[in-house]
Amino acid sequence: MRARTGRRPGNPDTREAILRAARTAFAERGFDAASIRAIATAAGVDPALVHHYFGSKDKLFLAAMNAPVDPAALLPGVLDGDPDHIGERLVRMFLGVWDSPAGVAGVALLRSAVTTEWTARLLREFLVTQVLRRVLQHLGADPAELPLRGSLAAAQMAGLVLMRYVIKLEPLASAPPETVVAAVGPAVQRYLTGPLAGVFPHPPAGSP
Amino acid sequence: MRARTGRRPGNPDTREAILRAARTAFAERGFDAASIRAIATAAGVDPALVHHYFGSKDKLFLAAMNAPVDPAALLPGVLDGDPDHIGERLVRMFLGVWDSPAGVAGVALLRSAVTTEWTARLLREFLVTQVLRRVLQHLGADPAELPLRGSLAAAQMAGLVLMRYVIKLEPLASAPPETVVAAVGPAVQRYLTGPLAGVFPHPPAGSP
Repeated sequence: MRARTGRRPGNPDTREAILRAARTAFAERGFDAASIRAIATAAGVDPALVHHYFGSKDKLFLAAMNAPVDPAALLPGVLDGDPDHIGERLVRMFLGVWDSPAGVAGVALLRSAVTTEWTARLLREFLVTQVLRRVLQHLGADPAELPLRGSLAAAQMAGLVLMRYVIKLEPLASAPPETVVAAVGPAVQRYLTGPLAGVFPHPPAGSP
Repeated sequence: MRARTGRRPGNPDTREAILRAARTAFAERGFDAASIRAIATAAGVDPALVHHYFGSKDKLFLAAMNAPVDPAALLPGVLDGDPDHIGERLVRMFLGVWDSPAGVAGVALLRSAVTTEWTARLLREFLVTQVLRRVLQHLGADPAELPLRGSLAAAQMAGLVLMRYVIKLEPLASAPPETVVAAVGPAVQRYLTGPLAGVFPHPPAGSP
């Protein structure tokens, strides 16, 4: 059930107590406001033990929400390269994850987020702090536009995953990955960097 | 709980037996292959009684899956008018439904479809036979392209609903409806009628 942290020394009950405290803290206070110190206090352990078990707040968060993958490891391959094709690379990376064994954990996470407000909150924090913040900082677009652009891109990606892997609507469910990349990549690109008439007062910097 | 059929004569147990048989038939055989005659036989009633209670196979299907709205009533307002803005009208209609009391039933349906394979099948049949078939027949594009175009548009709409109304990712969740229409409408339009380079061998008829 837990094979991501590499090492798991000490008492499994302690580890589980930390994860329980972390889930509550991240869901109630959000990722940024939840501190390792407060999580350690709630779990009745020393903060050094939390660092020892999980390494960083990012990694504790991924473990607490059973994240299928670590965006920090995957996103550099998406962000590096021609910025005009970042949408395609993002869709290609997504399909790679969901077509892999990690996709099963991803479907479980999505199911849980749709049915449980508490998991929905964790997923929201995950998307904003682990995925969108990284992508959007890299793009360097107008900071005022970034949050809406990010959530529009997230909606497109989430719908793709929902229809292809959960509802399994054909022919999208069986379409070759590169067909999906060609179809959905430009839509994601438009949300991230394209001009969005009627949404923002001016076209974004660098657009024609 | 059921206020859509206008009249509900006869025995409520009989009505419920028909709905149970209909759910099984539509989920197992699909909308097109499920016949009112077979559903009546499974429920132990005369087919005339099914027509009497529900009117048509479309309406029986909507009742069986607790559909929040009847697409046959809503879609004419989307399909009539400038075909180049059908994406915007589709998004505007969707937001109207999800912002209305019917949106609560819609969230319940989506939750159920994400967690239950059986409801996922019904939702798939609903999307294909009640929504996409009507939209795509109206557009009159290349029949070979219609199913994939329809499922791509459905994925975009589903993701919008998921992020705005279920996961409630900000600022998308609180964005004014017309901002969302301006942002997402063109993406839906592209899926339905735009050229999709790398997806189909040729641009669709009528595109530049």
